[in-house]
Amino acid sequence: MESLGVALGERSYSIHIGSGILDDAALYAPYVGPKAAVVTNEVVAPLYLARVRAALESAGAQVVPIVVEDGERAKRWQTLERVFDELLGARCGRDALVVALGGGVIGDLAGFAAAVYQRGVSLVQVPTTLLAQVDSSVGGKTAINHPRAKNMIGAFHQPRAVISDVATLDTLPDRELRAGLAEVIKHALALDLRFVEWLEASVETLLARDRAALTYAVRRCCELKAAVVAADERETGTRALLNLGHTFGHAIEAGAGYGTWLHGEAVAAGMVMAAELSSRLGLIGAQDAARVRKLVARAGLPVAGPALSGEQLLQLMALDKKSAGGRLRFVLLESIGRAVLRGDVAEPLVLQSMAAATQ
Amino acid sequence: MESLGVALGERSYSIHIGSGILDDAALYAPYVGPKAAVVTNEVVAPLYLARVRAALESAGAQVVPIVVEDGERAKRWQTLERVFDELLGARCGRDALVVALGGGVIGDLAGFAAAVYQRGVSLVQVPTTLLAQVDSSVGGKTAINHPRAKNMIGAFHQPRAVISDVATLDTLPDRELRAGLAEVIKHALALDLRFVEWLEASVETLLARDRAALTYAVRRCCELKAAVVAADERETGTRALLNLGHTFGHAIEAGAGYGTWLHGEAVAAGMVMAAELSSRLGLIGAQDAARVRKLVARAGLPVAGPALSGEQLLQLMALDKKSAGGRLRFVLLESIGRAVLRGDVAEPLVLQSMAAATQ
Repeated sequence: MESLGVALGERSYSIHIGSGILDDAALYAPYVGPKAAVVTNEVVAPLYLARVRAALESAGAQVVPIVVEDGERAKRWQTLERVFDELLGARCGRDALVVALGGGVIGDLAGFAAAVYQRGVSLVQVPTTLLAQVDSSVGGKTAINHPRAKNMIGAFHQPRAVISDVATLDTLPDRELRAGLAEVIKHALALDLRFVEWLEASVETLLARDRAALTYAVRRCCELKAAVVAADERETGTRALLNLGHTFGHAIEAGAGYGTWLHGEAVAAGMVMAAELSSRLGLIGAQDAARVRKLVARAGLPVAGPALSGEQLLQLMALDKKSAGGRLRFVLLESIGRAVLRGDVAEPLVLQSMAAATQ
Repeated sequence: MESLGVALGERSYSIHIGSGILDDAALYAPYVGPKAAVVTNEVVAPLYLARVRAALESAGAQVVPIVVEDGERAKRWQTLERVFDELLGARCGRDALVVALGGGVIGDLAGFAAAVYQRGVSLVQVPTTLLAQVDSSVGGKTAINHPRAKNMIGAFHQPRAVISDVATLDTLPDRELRAGLAEVIKHALALDLRFVEWLEASVETLLARDRAALTYAVRRCCELKAAVVAADERETGTRALLNLGHTFGHAIEAGAGYGTWLHGEAVAAGMVMAAELSSRLGLIGAQDAARVRKLVARAGLPVAGPALSGEQLLQLMALDKKSAGGRLRFVLLESIGRAVLRGDVAEPLVLQSMAAATQ
């Protein structure tokens, strides 16, 4: 097992990464109260709930299991209210612990519940998807969706610990593993050339679910993200660099219809588009954009958007940002391994970049 | 105008207290974004919305008025969702400002909306009741109710500033003025003997709405509360002393049926009960308990609970705490002006104290 820290003053915490650590009671013991509520979904519960429950019980907690529906649909008020009902019904107090056992949706939902139940209780993230292990479980972002916009209602609520068991990735469908790899590639492209080189040497090993390789990839992503979060907890600056591929990606997700594309798939195609745009702006060379495309393709991820015109995607991007009161901004590459934020990009170049990525 | 600070590191802010300062654009200017949403209710809007709107507009913001129903009923999810709908509909971004214009309910509702809309936007509290000016607008507690328990879903979200205009108290019904006085008396009894003496000399002047006296009372309460909040922002310790009268008070509110007793009225009778209990425990003398009762009575506030047996109130107290997973604790007086937290109180003494306060 490897452990690393996220330095956030009194909100600092550890990330533990290893194989088979999901039911290590010692990892939970410092944070359990009299009650520990495990929020998970109907797919993850049969696989891992019993083991997590046993660990929490041997750490001294009375366990309250809360099993919600699978999928993005769970990130809504009705589901959140059910979580509150069960927490109150089980008489969980301010000293209760909430454990988020599952992927990004569960982490967001359970994290937000922990952020606002009795004005905030402790949270431990136990991510069971690659996407959640490398990205969403670290950094404290929690949210539910509003019918008009994703992640619109939420909070920054840092966990007390993150327990990432790469053995849980054994049960992850191939498609979700690849979607998680998109976020791994994102961290590397945005922040670390050497990690890009490692990925270029290791992508097939990762797809074969080699545990040592997965452990390294999770650890490196967490290290990179921890540094960014420590410098900019509430995303007022550099943390936005981790949104590489996301401006395009959100439009792809919305355009294809939510749920049709996985988030990671949309981000993958979005990164290819961002690289194309970076090349057209002269920030990187055409061979760098080709290098991004090749890595994404080797991970089995889409390098082109859905069957929508560039104009349609552009409208979706504008709508997404306008409804949230924001300006259209792009995270671009100024070299492989170094992202930069730009807000002054001409529309024709954006259209050309999307077209280049849909050929 | 007088200004004082709440020292909370990067979350520090100023409280401005004066007469006629509600529409001073300079007080809003440092915090306005492109949009400023004013959350208020149907009673306060006709009185003060136009003036606040004009001030925000001259400070450079586009104003989004959001008028909700009057009363505690507004502290529920449906109303909160309406606030989110209007914020999104008006394309308020992360740089929007939320202004809470009204009493404690509006401060709690608008404050919680600001805490979680797009994971947190800036908030300015403009309290228009004595209770909100002396207590609820300061310290960052925000919440909505759950059908099973009050203030169960919320956040600590400190405002950027508090603007307390005592001239708004002119329009406050007498009963609400007195309920606010209960919280003034609470601050004094819990924390400051000299302030108790001042109140004993000034209670009729306050009831006559003398602006200088009201300004002093608001300022002194804010000073006392600011010090407590600075030392214990998230109520893990000493901040609980400000709950003097609240363990009894919550049971009175629930027992009488919410809305029958105003919160301040229940706290008033609760403080008399807490003083009786303190006397029975030998912490203070019988003459000190009588002194508390006399001050509460002079403020026109109830010194006895509703027509419920002590056993009924005790059950309500236990239920309130159990549903929230907490232990029954009492804030007691170890002298006039000095509160102390006690968790080991025998039930018969609690019953006797309630009976003494219902004679």
